[in-house]
Amino acid sequence: MPQLLKVQNFNVSSDGVGAGENQSLERPFGDGVEPERLFKWAGATASWPNRTEPGGTRGLDDYLTRDFSHNIGAEIMGRNKFGPQRGPWADHEWQGWWGDEPPFHTPVFVMTHHHRPSITLSDTTFHFVDGDPAAVLAQAKEAAQGKDVRLGGGVSTVRQFLDADLVDTLHIAVSPIKLGTGLRLWDTPDDLLDRFHLDVVPSPSGVTHHLFWRK
Amino acid sequence: MPQLLKVQNFNVSSDGVGAGENQSLERPFGDGVEPERLFKWAGATASWPNRTEPGGTRGLDDYLTRDFSHNIGAEIMGRNKFGPQRGPWADHEWQGWWGDEPPFHTPVFVMTHHHRPSITLSDTTFHFVDGDPAAVLAQAKEAAQGKDVRLGGGVSTVRQFLDADLVDTLHIAVSPIKLGTGLRLWDTPDDLLDRFHLDVVPSPSGVTHHLFWRK
Repeated sequence: MPQLLKVQNFNVSSDGVGAGENQSLERPFGDGVEPERLFKWAGATASWPNRTEPGGTRGLDDYLTRDFSHNIGAEIMGRNKFGPQRGPWADHEWQGWWGDEPPFHTPVFVMTHHHRPSITLSDTTFHFVDGDPAAVLAQAKEAAQGKDVRLGGGVSTVRQFLDADLVDTLHIAVSPIKLGTGLRLWDTPDDLLDRFHLDVVPSPSGVTHHLFWRK
Repeated sequence: MPQLLKVQNFNVSSDGVGAGENQSLERPFGDGVEPERLFKWAGATASWPNRTEPGGTRGLDDYLTRDFSHNIGAEIMGRNKFGPQRGPWADHEWQGWWGDEPPFHTPVFVMTHHHRPSITLSDTTFHFVDGDPAAVLAQAKEAAQGKDVRLGGGVSTVRQFLDADLVDTLHIAVSPIKLGTGLRLWDTPDDLLDRFHLDVVPSPSGVTHHLFWRK
Protein backbone atom coordinates (compact mmCIF):
# COMPACT_ATOMS: atom_id res chain seq x y z
CA MET A 1 0.00 0.00 0.00
CA PRO A 2 1.35 3.47 -0.84
CA GLN A 3 1.78 5.85 2.11
CA LEU A 4 -0.57 8.80 1.68
CA LEU A 5 -0.25 12.39 2.85
CA LYS A 6 -3.70 13.39 4.13
CA VAL A 7 -5.32 16.61 5.31
CA GLN A 8 -8.12 15.65 7.73
CA ASN A 9 -10.84 17.58 9.52
CA PHE A 10 -9.46 20.91 8.35
CA ASN A 11 -11.97 23.69 8.91
CA VAL A 12 -12.49 26.81 6.86
CA SER A 13 -15.18 29.45 6.55
CA SER A 14 -17.50 29.71 3.55
CA ASP A 15 -14.97 32.13 2.05
CA GLY A 16 -12.02 29.78 2.59
CA VAL A 17 -10.50 31.34 5.72
CA GLY A 18 -8.89 28.89 8.17
CA ALA A 19 -7.29 31.29 10.65
CA GLY A 20 -6.94 34.97 11.38
CA GLU A 21 -3.84 37.12 11.40
CA ASN A 22 -1.88 37.80 14.61
CA GLN A 23 -2.06 34.45 16.33
CA SER A 24 -1.24 34.68 20.03
CA LEU A 25 -1.35 32.58 23.18
CA GLU A 26 -4.74 34.03 23.96
CA ARG A 27 -6.08 33.69 20.41
CA PRO A 28 -4.57 30.56 18.83
CA PHE A 29 -6.59 31.12 15.66
CA GLY A 30 -5.76 34.81 15.44
CA ASP A 31 -7.92 37.88 15.03
CA GLY A 32 -11.58 37.44 14.28
CA VAL A 33 -11.68 33.63 14.27
CA GLU A 34 -13.48 31.83 17.08
CA PRO A 35 -12.38 28.25 16.46
CA GLU A 36 -15.36 26.79 18.28
CA ARG A 37 -17.61 28.20 15.56
CA LEU A 38 -15.65 26.42 12.84
CA PHE A 39 -15.24 23.18 14.87
CA LYS A 40 -18.79 23.00 16.21
CA TRP A 41 -19.80 20.19 13.85
CA ALA A 42 -16.94 18.00 15.12
CA GLY A 43 -17.47 18.80 18.78
CA ALA A 44 -21.05 17.53 18.56
CA THR A 45 -19.99 14.01 17.49
CA ALA A 46 -19.61 10.94 19.68
CA SER A 47 -16.01 10.41 18.51
CA TRP A 48 -14.71 13.92 19.21
CA PRO A 49 -11.47 13.23 21.11
CA ASN A 50 -12.03 16.00 23.65
CA ARG A 51 -15.52 14.85 24.55
CA THR A 52 -15.96 14.75 28.30
CA GLU A 53 -19.58 13.63 28.51
CA PRO A 54 -21.20 10.57 26.95
CA GLY A 55 -23.53 11.02 24.01
CA GLY A 56 -22.91 12.85 20.76
CA THR A 57 -24.11 12.25 17.23
CA ARG A 58 -23.20 9.10 15.26
CA GLY A 59 -24.20 10.19 11.77
CA LEU A 60 -22.13 11.53 8.87
CA ASP A 61 -20.00 13.95 10.89
CA ASP A 62 -19.01 11.18 13.26
CA TYR A 63 -17.51 9.15 10.38
CA LEU A 64 -15.26 12.12 9.65
CA THR A 65 -14.13 12.61 13.24
CA ARG A 66 -13.54 8.94 13.97
CA ASP A 67 -11.46 8.52 10.82
CA PHE A 68 -8.95 11.04 12.21
CA SER A 69 -6.50 8.41 13.51
CA HIS A 70 -7.25 5.64 11.02
CA ASN A 71 -3.95 4.23 9.73
CA ILE A 72 -2.09 7.46 10.60
CA GLY A 73 1.53 6.95 11.71
CA ALA A 74 2.83 10.54 11.90
CA GLU A 75 1.73 14.17 11.59
CA ILE A 76 3.38 17.17 9.98
CA MET A 77 2.41 20.62 11.26
CA GLY A 78 3.53 24.18 10.78
CA ARG A 79 5.10 25.97 13.70
CA ASN A 80 1.94 28.02 14.26
CA LYS A 81 -0.01 24.89 15.07
CA PHE A 82 2.49 24.12 17.83
CA GLY A 83 2.61 27.59 19.33
CA PRO A 84 2.46 31.30 18.54
CA GLN A 85 6.17 32.07 18.99
CA ARG A 86 8.25 33.42 16.11
CA GLY A 87 12.05 33.46 15.69
CA PRO A 88 14.44 31.47 17.91
CA TRP A 89 12.75 29.49 20.70
CA ALA A 90 13.04 31.65 23.83
CA ASP A 91 11.08 29.56 26.31
CA HIS A 92 11.62 25.79 26.31
CA GLU A 93 9.37 25.42 29.34
CA TRP A 94 6.25 26.15 27.32
CA GLN A 95 5.55 22.91 25.47
CA GLY A 96 2.94 23.92 22.95
CA TRP A 97 -0.81 24.27 22.82
CA TRP A 98 -1.62 20.60 23.14
CA GLY A 99 -1.38 19.90 26.85
CA ASP A 100 -0.06 16.81 28.62
CA GLU A 101 -2.15 14.44 26.47
CA PRO A 102 -1.88 15.68 22.89
CA PRO A 103 -4.47 14.12 20.54
CA PHE A 104 -1.89 12.88 18.02
CA HIS A 105 -0.48 9.69 19.62
CA THR A 106 2.28 9.51 16.96
CA PRO A 107 5.50 11.32 16.11
CA VAL A 108 4.73 14.92 15.06
CA PHE A 109 7.10 16.90 12.84
CA VAL A 110 6.91 20.64 13.53
CA MET A 111 8.37 22.69 10.67
CA THR A 112 10.65 25.48 11.91
CA HIS A 113 13.95 27.05 10.93
CA HIS A 114 14.93 27.17 14.60
CA HIS A 115 16.36 24.13 16.29
CA ARG A 116 14.84 22.78 19.47
CA PRO A 117 15.21 19.37 21.16
CA SER A 118 12.35 16.89 20.72
CA ILE A 119 9.58 16.83 23.36
CA THR A 120 7.64 13.75 24.42
CA LEU A 121 4.22 14.32 26.01
CA SER A 122 2.38 11.07 26.77
CA ASP A 123 2.46 9.01 23.54
CA THR A 124 3.17 11.98 21.24
CA THR A 125 6.72 13.10 20.42
CA PHE A 126 7.24 16.49 18.77
CA HIS A 127 10.31 16.76 16.53
CA PHE A 128 11.39 20.20 15.29
CA VAL A 129 12.61 19.98 11.72
CA ASP A 130 13.99 22.33 9.12
CA GLY A 131 13.72 21.46 5.44
CA ASP A 132 11.55 21.74 2.38
CA PRO A 133 8.21 19.91 2.25
CA ALA A 134 9.59 16.90 0.35
CA ALA A 135 12.38 16.38 2.89
CA VAL A 136 10.05 16.71 5.88
CA LEU A 137 7.56 14.33 4.26
CA ALA A 138 10.33 11.76 3.75
CA GLN A 139 11.21 11.97 7.47
CA ALA A 140 7.56 11.66 8.49
CA LYS A 141 6.94 8.68 6.20
CA GLU A 142 9.90 6.87 7.67
CA ALA A 143 8.62 7.53 11.20
CA ALA A 144 5.11 6.38 10.18
CA GLN A 145 6.44 2.89 9.47
CA GLY A 146 4.24 2.16 6.50
CA LYS A 147 1.17 4.03 7.72
CA ASP A 148 -0.14 7.29 6.27
CA VAL A 149 0.96 10.78 7.29
CA ARG A 150 -1.48 13.50 8.37
CA LEU A 151 -0.80 17.06 7.24
CA GLY A 152 -2.17 18.96 10.20
CA GLY A 153 -2.00 22.57 8.98
CA GLY A 154 -2.24 25.49 9.42
CA VAL A 155 -3.31 27.16 6.24
CA SER A 156 0.14 28.17 5.01
CA THR A 157 1.57 24.71 5.66
CA VAL A 158 -1.22 23.04 3.67
CA ARG A 159 -0.70 25.51 0.83
CA GLN A 160 3.05 24.87 0.85
CA PHE A 161 2.53 21.11 0.44
CA LEU A 162 -0.15 21.67 -2.22
CA ASP A 163 2.24 23.91 -4.13
CA ALA A 164 4.83 21.12 -3.99
CA ASP A 165 2.12 18.67 -5.21
CA LEU A 166 2.70 16.31 -2.29
CA VAL A 167 -0.87 15.99 -0.93
CA ASP A 168 -2.87 12.85 -1.73
CA THR A 169 -6.23 13.50 -0.03
CA LEU A 170 -7.92 16.44 1.72
CA HIS A 171 -10.98 16.61 3.92
CA ILE A 172 -11.94 20.28 4.26
CA ALA A 173 -15.05 21.08 6.31
CA VAL A 174 -16.58 24.33 5.06
CA SER A 175 -18.68 26.09 7.69
CA PRO A 176 -21.61 28.34 6.80
CA ILE A 177 -19.82 31.34 8.34
CA LYS A 178 -18.22 34.12 6.30
CA LEU A 179 -15.09 35.60 7.87
CA GLY A 180 -13.90 38.11 5.26
CA THR A 181 -10.29 38.49 6.33
CA GLY A 182 -7.61 36.09 7.50
CA LEU A 183 -5.45 33.28 6.18
CA ARG A 184 -7.18 31.83 3.16
CA LEU A 185 -6.84 28.22 2.02
CA TRP A 186 -8.45 28.91 -1.35
CA ASP A 187 -10.52 31.40 -3.28
CA THR A 188 -12.81 28.53 -4.25
CA PRO A 189 -12.55 24.71 -3.92
CA ASP A 190 -12.48 24.65 -7.73
CA ASP A 191 -8.86 25.83 -7.49
CA LEU A 192 -7.89 22.19 -6.83
CA LEU A 193 -9.97 20.47 -9.51
CA ASP A 194 -7.15 20.30 -12.03
CA ARG A 195 -5.37 17.79 -9.79
CA PHE A 196 -8.06 16.30 -7.56
CA HIS A 197 -11.40 14.54 -7.72
CA LEU A 198 -13.94 16.14 -5.36
CA ASP A 199 -17.00 14.85 -3.50
CA VAL A 200 -19.03 17.73 -2.04
CA VAL A 201 -21.09 16.33 0.84
CA PRO A 202 -23.49 18.62 2.72
CA SER A 203 -24.03 17.48 6.29
CA PRO A 204 -27.30 17.87 8.18
CA SER A 205 -25.22 19.78 10.76
CA GLY A 206 -24.79 22.68 8.31
CA VAL A 207 -21.13 22.12 7.40
CA THR A 208 -20.23 20.93 3.88
CA HIS A 209 -17.52 18.31 3.73
CA HIS A 210 -15.20 18.61 0.75
CA LEU A 211 -13.39 15.33 0.07
CA PHE A 212 -10.55 15.56 -2.46
CA TRP A 213 -8.38 12.77 -3.79
CA ARG A 214 -5.65 12.89 -6.37
CA LYS A 215 -6.50 12.21 -10.01
CA MET B 1 -17.06 3.32 26.42
CA PRO B 2 -20.27 1.33 25.86
CA GLN B 3 -20.01 -1.56 23.42
CA LEU B 4 -22.26 -0.86 20.43
CA LEU B 5 -24.10 -3.25 18.12
CA LYS B 6 -23.64 -1.83 14.61
CA VAL B 7 -25.02 -2.66 11.17
CA GLN B 8 -22.45 -1.53 8.61
CA ASN B 9 -22.40 -1.33 4.82
CA PHE B 10 -25.73 -3.09 4.52
CA ASN B 11 -27.14 -2.74 1.01
CA VAL B 12 -30.77 -2.56 0.00
CA SER B 13 -32.66 -1.53 -3.12
CA SER B 14 -34.69 1.67 -3.37
CA ASP B 15 -37.69 -0.39 -2.23
CA GLY B 16 -35.87 -1.83 0.78
CA VAL B 17 -35.01 -5.29 -0.54
CA GLY B 18 -31.70 -6.76 0.66
CA ALA B 19 -31.87 -10.26 -0.78
CA GLY B 20 -34.09 -12.45 -2.92
CA GLU B 21 -35.89 -15.63 -1.98
CA ASN B 22 -34.37 -19.07 -2.60
CA GLN B 23 -30.73 -18.47 -1.76
CA SER B 24 -28.47 -21.18 -3.14
CA LEU B 25 -24.77 -21.92 -3.63
CA GLU B 26 -24.99 -20.46 -7.10
CA ARG B 27 -27.05 -17.44 -6.09
CA PRO B 28 -26.00 -16.37 -2.58
CA PHE B 29 -28.41 -13.42 -2.69
CA GLY B 30 -31.29 -15.46 -4.02
CA ASP B 31 -33.61 -14.94 -6.95
CA GLY B 32 -33.49 -11.68 -8.82
CA VAL B 33 -30.72 -10.00 -6.81
CA GLU B 34 -27.36 -9.46 -8.44
CA PRO B 35 -25.28 -8.43 -5.45
CA GLU B 36 -22.72 -6.64 -7.59
CA ARG B 37 -25.39 -4.12 -8.54
CA LEU B 38 -26.14 -3.34 -4.89
CA PHE B 39 -22.43 -3.37 -3.87
CA LYS B 40 -21.07 -1.43 -6.83
CA TRP B 41 -20.55 1.75 -4.82
CA ALA B 42 -18.35 -0.11 -2.31
CA GLY B 43 -16.39 -2.05 -4.92
CA ALA B 44 -15.32 1.22 -6.54
CA THR B 45 -13.59 2.50 -3.40
CA ALA B 46 -9.89 2.32 -2.55
CA SER B 47 -10.62 0.57 0.78
CA TRP B 48 -12.80 -2.25 -0.61
CA PRO B 49 -11.28 -5.33 1.05
CA ASN B 50 -11.54 -7.48 -2.08
CA ARG B 51 -9.77 -4.93 -4.29
CA THR B 52 -7.09 -6.62 -6.37
CA GLU B 53 -5.82 -3.61 -8.33
CA PRO B 54 -4.52 -0.30 -7.00
CA GLY B 55 -6.67 2.79 -7.39
CA GLY B 56 -10.25 3.34 -6.37
CA THR B 57 -12.12 6.37 -5.11
CA ARG B 58 -11.27 8.10 -1.83
CA GLY B 59 -14.33 10.27 -1.38
CA LEU B 60 -17.45 9.79 0.73
CA ASP B 61 -18.04 6.12 -0.13
CA ASP B 62 -14.49 5.27 0.90
CA TYR B 63 -15.11 6.60 4.42
CA LEU B 64 -17.95 4.12 4.71
CA THR B 65 -15.97 1.13 3.44
CA ARG B 66 -12.85 1.86 5.48
CA ASP B 67 -14.88 2.23 8.66
CA PHE B 68 -15.98 -1.42 8.33
CA SER B 69 -13.39 -2.79 10.78
CA HIS B 70 -13.01 0.27 13.00
CA ASN B 71 -13.16 -0.84 16.64
CA ILE B 72 -15.06 -4.03 15.74
CA GLY B 73 -14.26 -7.05 17.92
CA ALA B 74 -16.85 -9.61 16.76
CA GLU B 75 -19.60 -10.17 14.19
CA ILE B 76 -23.03 -11.77 14.47
CA MET B 77 -24.57 -13.18 11.31
CA GLY B 78 -27.58 -15.25 10.36
CA ARG B 79 -27.03 -18.73 9.02
CA ASN B 80 -27.85 -17.59 5.48
CA LYS B 81 -24.85 -15.28 5.47
CA PHE B 82 -22.62 -18.27 6.22
CA GLY B 83 -24.13 -20.64 3.66
CA PRO B 84 -27.35 -21.66 1.95
CA GLN B 85 -27.91 -24.93 3.82
CA ARG B 86 -31.03 -25.45 5.91
CA GLY B 87 -31.69 -27.98 8.67
CA PRO B 88 -28.95 -30.11 10.28
CA TRP B 89 -25.46 -29.56 8.85
CA ALA B 90 -24.91 -32.37 6.32
CA ASP B 91 -21.53 -31.39 4.90
CA HIS B 92 -18.83 -30.21 7.33
CA GLU B 93 -16.30 -30.05 4.50
CA TRP B 94 -17.95 -26.99 2.98
CA GLN B 95 -16.79 -24.12 5.19
CA GLY B 96 -19.02 -21.28 4.10
CA TRP B 97 -19.05 -18.62 1.44
CA TRP B 98 -16.10 -16.66 2.73
CA GLY B 99 -13.05 -18.54 1.44
CA ASP B 100 -9.73 -19.16 3.16
CA GLU B 101 -9.29 -15.48 4.08
CA PRO B 102 -12.67 -14.27 5.37
CA PRO B 103 -12.91 -10.48 5.60
CA PHE B 104 -13.97 -10.47 9.27
CA HIS B 105 -10.69 -11.01 11.18
CA THR B 106 -12.60 -11.52 14.46
CA PRO B 107 -14.77 -14.15 16.07
CA VAL B 108 -18.03 -14.55 14.11
CA PHE B 109 -21.20 -15.89 15.73
CA VAL B 110 -23.42 -17.71 13.23
CA MET B 111 -26.99 -18.08 14.51
CA THR B 112 -28.37 -21.58 13.94
CA HIS B 113 -30.46 -24.12 15.79
CA HIS B 114 -28.14 -26.88 14.59
CA HIS B 115 -24.90 -27.56 16.38
CA ARG B 116 -21.61 -27.59 14.51
CA PRO B 117 -18.01 -27.34 15.79
CA SER B 118 -16.26 -23.97 15.43
CA ILE B 119 -14.18 -23.38 12.28
CA THR B 120 -11.05 -21.22 12.11
CA LEU B 121 -10.09 -19.83 8.71
CA SER B 122 -7.04 -17.54 8.83
CA ASP B 123 -7.76 -14.99 11.61
CA THR B 124 -11.55 -15.51 11.61
CA THR B 125 -13.23 -18.12 13.81
CA PHE B 126 -16.86 -19.04 13.13
CA HIS B 127 -18.85 -20.18 16.16
CA PHE B 128 -22.29 -21.74 15.63
CA VAL B 129 -24.67 -20.61 18.35
CA ASP B 130 -28.28 -21.19 19.29
CA GLY B 131 -30.12 -18.63 21.39
CA ASP B 132 -32.22 -15.52 21.28
CA PRO B 133 -30.69 -12.24 20.05
CA ALA B 134 -29.92 -10.96 23.57
CA ALA B 135 -28.06 -14.15 24.51
CA VAL B 136 -26.07 -14.21 21.27
CA LEU B 137 -25.21 -10.53 21.68
CA ALA B 138 -23.95 -11.18 25.20
CA GLN B 139 -21.63 -13.91 23.85
CA ALA B 140 -20.39 -11.67 21.04
CA LYS B 141 -19.74 -8.73 23.37
CA GLU B 142 -17.69 -10.93 25.64
CA ALA B 143 -15.64 -12.16 22.67
CA ALA B 144 -15.20 -8.59 21.41
CA GLN B 145 -13.26 -7.70 24.57
CA GLY B 146 -14.57 -4.19 24.94
CA LYS B 147 -14.82 -3.40 21.23
CA ASP B 148 -18.06 -3.03 19.27
CA VAL B 149 -20.01 -5.86 17.63
CA ARG B 150 -21.02 -5.81 13.96
CA LEU B 151 -24.44 -7.18 13.04
CA GLY B 152 -23.69 -8.58 9.61
CA GLY B 153 -27.14 -9.55 8.36
CA GLY B 154 -28.94 -10.81 6.40
CA VAL B 155 -32.24 -9.06 6.34
CA SER B 156 -34.12 -11.34 8.73
CA THR B 157 -31.28 -11.27 11.27
CA VAL B 158 -31.18 -7.47 11.26
CA ARG B 159 -34.96 -7.34 11.66
CA GLN B 160 -34.80 -9.83 14.53
CA PHE B 161 -32.32 -7.63 16.44
CA LEU B 162 -34.29 -4.47 15.62
CA ASP B 163 -37.44 -6.13 16.98
CA ALA B 164 -35.53 -6.91 20.19
CA ASP B 165 -34.35 -3.25 20.28
CA LEU B 166 -30.68 -4.27 20.52
CA VAL B 167 -29.23 -2.26 17.60
CA ASP B 168 -27.31 0.96 18.35
CA THR B 169 -26.35 2.20 14.86
CA LEU B 170 -27.13 1.25 11.26
CA HIS B 171 -25.49 2.22 8.00
CA ILE B 172 -27.84 1.19 5.19
CA ALA B 173 -26.76 2.00 1.63
CA VAL B 174 -29.82 2.42 -0.56
CA SER B 175 -29.14 1.79 -4.23
CA PRO B 176 -31.14 3.46 -7.01
CA ILE B 177 -32.42 0.08 -8.18
CA LYS B 178 -35.96 -1.14 -7.61
CA LEU B 179 -36.25 -4.89 -7.05
CA GLY B 180 -39.93 -5.40 -6.33
CA THR B 181 -39.82 -8.77 -4.61
CA GLY B 182 -37.49 -10.34 -2.07
CA LEU B 183 -36.56 -10.03 1.58
CA ARG B 184 -37.41 -6.54 2.68
CA LEU B 185 -35.58 -4.64 5.43
CA TRP B 186 -38.26 -1.94 5.62
CA ASP B 187 -41.18 -0.43 3.82
CA THR B 188 -39.56 2.96 4.31
CA PRO B 189 -36.59 4.21 6.39
CA ASP B 190 -39.15 6.24 8.34
CA ASP B 191 -40.16 2.97 10.05
CA LEU B 192 -37.15 3.45 12.34
CA LEU B 193 -37.53 7.13 13.20
CA ASP B 194 -39.37 6.51 16.44
CA ARG B 195 -36.19 5.03 17.92
CA PHE B 196 -33.34 6.44 15.80
CA HIS B 197 -31.87 9.69 14.56
CA LEU B 198 -31.22 9.59 10.82
CA ASP B 199 -28.74 11.36 8.52
CA VAL B 200 -29.66 10.83 4.86
CA VAL B 201 -26.51 11.36 2.80
CA PRO B 202 -26.69 11.12 -1.00
CA SER B 203 -23.38 10.06 -2.51
CA PRO B 204 -22.10 11.25 -5.89
CA SER B 205 -21.91 7.52 -6.77
CA GLY B 206 -25.70 7.33 -6.85
CA VAL B 207 -26.23 5.41 -3.61
CA THR B 208 -27.85 7.14 -0.62
CA HIS B 209 -26.29 6.36 2.72
CA HIS B 210 -28.75 6.16 5.61
CA LEU B 211 -26.98 6.59 8.95
CA PHE B 212 -29.10 5.81 12.01
CA TRP B 213 -28.19 6.11 15.64
CA ARG B 214 -30.26 5.46 18.71
CA LYS B 215 -32.17 8.33 20.29
